[in-house]
Amino acid sequence: MYKLLKDLFPICRSITGGGNRQTLKMLNQEIPIKIEEFQSGTQCYDWTIPDEWNIKEAYIENETGTRIVDFQDNNLHVVNYSEPVNGTFSLDELKSHIYSIPEKPELIPYATSYYKRDWGFCMSHDQLEKLKPGNYNILIDSTIRPGSLTIGEAFLNGKSKKEVLISSYICHPSMANDSLSGVVLAVQIFKHLFMLKNRRYSYRFVFLPETIGAIVYLFHHGKYLKKYVHAGLVLTCLGDPNSFNYKCTRQGNHELDEIVKHVFKHSGHECAFHDFFPYGSDERQYSSPGFNLPIGSLMRSIYGRFREYHTSGDNLDFVTEDALNESFEIYSKVFNALESNKRYMRDQPYCEPMLAKYNLHDTVGYIDSNDNKDAITRTVILKWLLNYSDGEHSLLDIANKIDISIDQLSVVAGQLEEKGIIYSV
Amino acid sequence: MYKLLKDLFPICRSITGGGNRQTLKMLNQEIPIKIEEFQSGTQCYDWTIPDEWNIKEAYIENETGTRIVDFQDNNLHVVNYSEPVNGTFSLDELKSHIYSIPEKPELIPYATSYYKRDWGFCMSHDQLEKLKPGNYNILIDSTIRPGSLTIGEAFLNGKSKKEVLISSYICHPSMANDSLSGVVLAVQIFKHLFMLKNRRYSYRFVFLPETIGAIVYLFHHGKYLKKYVHAGLVLTCLGDPNSFNYKCTRQGNHELDEIVKHVFKHSGHECAFHDFFPYGSDERQYSSPGFNLPIGSLMRSIYGRFREYHTSGDNLDFVTEDALNESFEIYSKVFNALESNKRYMRDQPYCEPMLAKYNLHDTVGYIDSNDNKDAITRTVILKWLLNYSDGEHSLLDIANKIDISIDQLSVVAGQLEEKGIIYSV
Amino acid sequence: MYKLLKDLFPICRSITGGGNRQTLKMLNQEIPIKIEEFQSGTQCYDWTIPDEWNIKEAYIENETGTRIVDFQDNNLHVVNYSEPVNGTFSLDELKSHIYSIPEKPELIPYATSYYKRDWGFCMSHDQLEKLKPGNYNILIDSTIRPGSLTIGEAFLNGKSKKEVLISSYICHPSMANDSLSGVVLAVQIFKHLFMLKNRRYSYRFVFLPETIGAIVYLFHHGKYLKKYVHAGLVLTCLGDPNSFNYKCTRQGNHELDEIVKHVFKHSGHECAFHDFFPYGSDERQYSSPGFNLPIGSLMRSIYGRFREYHTSGDNLDFVTEDALNESFEIYSKVFNALESNKRYMRDQPYCEPMLAKYNLHDTVGYIDSNDNKDAITRTVILKWLLNYSDGEHSLLDIANKIDISIDQLSVVAGQLEEKGIIYSV
Repeated sequence: MYKLLKDLFPICRSITGGGNRQTLKMLNQEIPIKIEEFQSGTQCYDWTIPDEWNIKEAYIENETGTRIVDFQDNNLHVVNYSEPVNGTFSLDELKSHIYSIPEKPELIPYATSYYKRDWGFCMSHDQLEKLKPGNYNILIDSTIRPGSLTIGEAFLNGKSKKEVLISSYICHPSMANDSLSGVVLAVQIFKHLFMLKNRRYSYRFVFLPETIGAIVYLFHHGKYLKKYVHAGLVLTCLGDPNSFNYKCTRQGNHELDEIVKHVFKHSGHECAFHDFFPYGSDERQYSSPGFNLPIGSLMRSIYGRFREYHTSGDNLDFVTEDALNESFEIYSKVFNALESNKRYMRDQPYCEPMLAKYNLHDTVGYIDSNDNKDAITRTVILKWLLNYSDGEHSLLDIANKIDISIDQLSVVAGQLEEKGIIYSV
Repeated sequence: MYKLLKDLFPICRSITGGGNRQTLKMLNQEIPIKIEEFQSGTQCYDWTIPDEWNIKEAYIENETGTRIVDFQDNNLHVVNYSEPVNGTFSLDELKSHIYSIPEKPELIPYATSYYKRDWGFCMSHDQLEKLKPGNYNILIDSTIRPGSLTIGEAFLNGKSKKEVLISSYICHPSMANDSLSGVVLAVQIFKHLFMLKNRRYSYRFVFLPETIGAIVYLFHHGKYLKKYVHAGLVLTCLGDPNSFNYKCTRQGNHELDEIVKHVFKHSGHECAFHDFFPYGSDERQYSSPGFNLPIGSLMRSIYGRFREYHTSGDNLDFVTEDALNESFEIYSKVFNALESNKRYMRDQPYCEPMLAKYNLHDTVGYIDSNDNKDAITRTVILKWLLNYSDGEHSLLDIANKIDISIDQLSVVAGQLEEKGIIYSV
Repeated sequence: MYKLLKDLFPICRSITGGGNRQTLKMLNQEIPIKIEEFQSGTQCYDWTIPDEWNIKEAYIENETGTRIVDFQDNNLHVVNYSEPVNGTFSLDELKSHIYSIPEKPELIPYATSYYKRDWGFCMSHDQLEKLKPGNYNILIDSTIRPGSLTIGEAFLNGKSKKEVLISSYICHPSMANDSLSGVVLAVQIFKHLFMLKNRRYSYRFVFLPETIGAIVYLFHHGKYLKKYVHAGLVLTCLGDPNSFNYKCTRQGNHELDEIVKHVFKHSGHECAFHDFFPYGSDERQYSSPGFNLPIGSLMRSIYGRFREYHTSGDNLDFVTEDALNESFEIYSKVFNALESNKRYMRDQPYCEPMLAKYNLHDTVGYIDSNDNKDAITRTVILKWLLNYSDGEHSLLDIANKIDISIDQLSVVAGQLEEKGIIYSV
């Protein structure tokens, strides 16, 4: 994952443009991506797809011809969607087009102006302070012309048409944690689920520009999603060194929320849980009242709440391979739990079956330790399953009653299913 | 309020009689009161309206002709509904007709004998102790004759026939906190709501003798109330210096209960919350099982739990103008919240609207502080409204999610409604 | 109870055989027991009734002819359901048929081999350690032949066909707490309920071998029970000196669970409450998913969690008369509460009735202490009953609101019912 992230990092992405196409092309070398283009000017609900933005180069030169800021060094230097400009400006004129963060003087901010024609540069506040009065030559060699907005999609078929939506966004230029960590984790999850035999759910992976991309996608596919999405996750901020944060679905007590809680309880990792809040990333669109899809977001740091957020500090040093791997480990447990969280019925639901018949019980009993609630023996687990295979309790419910992991319970359920004692409904 | 209370204080009220009519006449100089008379002898459920009681004078004279107790000094001196008496009694004979409170020796108790013909005097225990043996001349110049029971009503029309019932009682003689403070606050609330444009609810104010009055009123109007009362409050004990107590509706989780909790959370005032209990004031009748109206009671001290309760200590010194004003301030917040606690729907419920279009968002975004959950900016409030305007969440629900006051939220909801983005349902 | 327990103690019981018949015969001298026999070989769900086991004598003799272990001394010495054996064995051969508990070296364990033909002896680990090498003469004079499984039943008719099931098990040989304490308590409860006039519920007492007995019983009567059982209890471990433990019904919030909680709150006794778990005693069968009967289990020590469990330490010294009496006291309160936990309606549900009319209220009121929530006077209790006799609240609900015992409330409800003010629904 880290290698892919490193390869993707230098590309200048935006909500439209060549950077996004190049990003998706690289993802397509890992997993099969289907690409859709949506024409500029198309109306989607309250929004219009803007003209496409592309940029070749940009810089600020001082009077001696020295480039003091260069887009080649860091694509954050240019306000995303800047219109073309070429001219000489006094320091004062220039300053009204420069963005910096006085509180984080060494970091270059990330700024955008998608929907209002404007231009600007971003630089560290330290650098801004050192600029001397005088004239500056400015070049932004960009184009804003009718084109299209690009969305990538990957799909894995399961037994059910019910699907799980995995959404990550590809509109951020050179920032590693927000959002590339989510993009590369999505690729890794695809590979993991691809190997899974007998997938119960279908899985849909979308790679799209944040906000406008989700809106365009929902405008075209929202009705289908509303019918078939069982749950979903927005993936971002998954490579930093912080502990985990989970933002619950709008439903708040959805199976997905319960599963994430369960997985963390039985993993060694910390996670803070947050009720749904209607700002953040694309869950805002997926969970808007008309769709109300159950979409959670499992992150490490939360966007907006870490120092490096939306700055040049969110770089390849901030993200580590270990953190990405740990995030993947948790995600794979979540999907495994989702796949195995079925409800079972007893083939014959009256009284207990005679376990000894099925080689599931000792024949001579003395000081039956199975009667000791504290010891969770296989027989104890069997009895929980036999009693709660009533079509009303899911494996997760039963695992939580016993206080064991659904992984462990699922193995025993498999044995009972094989012997024809229980069946899933 | 305090001035009106001072004017009403000296009148000798009871469950029937001229004192009540005089009281309602004085209220009618403040707000438009409609008066209903119900004839003595009328059967109302299990009860019969008693004959009307009126009293001119009453005293106890000692052998030297000195009046040691005089109704003119304090109308609590006579047991309310005393039958007429005129004669000479020995101290021992007299004592069986005298009520005092040994534990509060300086206070005159308030006593009644509505439904059993009897007579008596009330005096401080200090005075009782000083009475010397000998004969006493007694006069109670009262009448108990067929007449009527008097109820006053004021009404404010709203858009809806659904109404809020505001009930206070006018049967207590010279006591200031219980119940005159409730009566004068009701008058003030009427004036406040009268000024409100576009009232959503109608408001019905009743001024009636406690228990029998509420029963008579419900006997005649209960069916209508059962159909149209959305919520109600019994007003009493609102002028004393104590902090607030709220007795919940019988429903316990009624909108009114939630609103009172919300108002206190966002005011600087303390309030203790009590589950409904089926004794106390007229909520006993309104919330009897056949009617089961959702009636709360927001008081300062609770009846029966303060030292001055039902004694001459509950006087004009015990009640303060400040306390009455503070009570009014809270009540007006409660009614404002009730009026604004609507449910909204999005005109177009899919995805977010483009806020910049409506001058509701900045155009160049960098380090978007709206993504910081801790800062409750206008944009954050907008996003909560846009997501939860789903017809299922009330403004109160949303305000509680954001943890801001419904006042503040209601202003932003008004802006969105004006722009046609949401509408109330 | 203790005397009956002492008489029953020496009998060698099992899941079938003469010991069980003798036990039921002795119970029949106390209460009217109806006996049912179920033939060996009968299939009941997944189980088959085994051949009947009877035993005359059994011993181990050493080379000098001394009986070192004798069934006459303690019937735990023989593995229950041992097949006949008669022969000489070396110490090593013998050892593979001997059961002991190293951790409790002075106690003889209780062992069974119902469904696999085998034989064995149980002895204290101390004794086992002392056995010297050499040959041992072994005799087990038992028979395993077609016969029947025996179940006893006692029944008390109530006004309703809805019944309460009281189940105890009679398959354990000489152990006092598990399960004889439950058997003798069941007998005592029968006597108590027999004396109760106007029983609301019917009561069914079953005395059966654990597991197989419950399964056989349910196979034949389960459909009826599913229709008519309102609640039930499995009785065991009720004579030891520990404080109480209550295992909730599978429903978890059943009326029975609420009643047991209430009874303990208002008794002076401690009780730990446990959620239902699907191992333990016959509630496993009664509450299997096909039947899902609401069966609780109120014990002192929990099976499997006390040192003497399933050993010779569970004897007449371990069980005390005081403990049995205390257990009975609690059980009788539980059944009394169940009988009196009705819902009432007001004959005329509008407003309060005029209590003075019914001699239920004083006529002259002053400093009405009924308005003080803290004093639970009879008038306060009356007002709770009058307000909550709405067909929705049970006496238990109301008692919990007032925080008094249902016993106390039930007396006042009886007075109101007599006067025709409320009626039960």
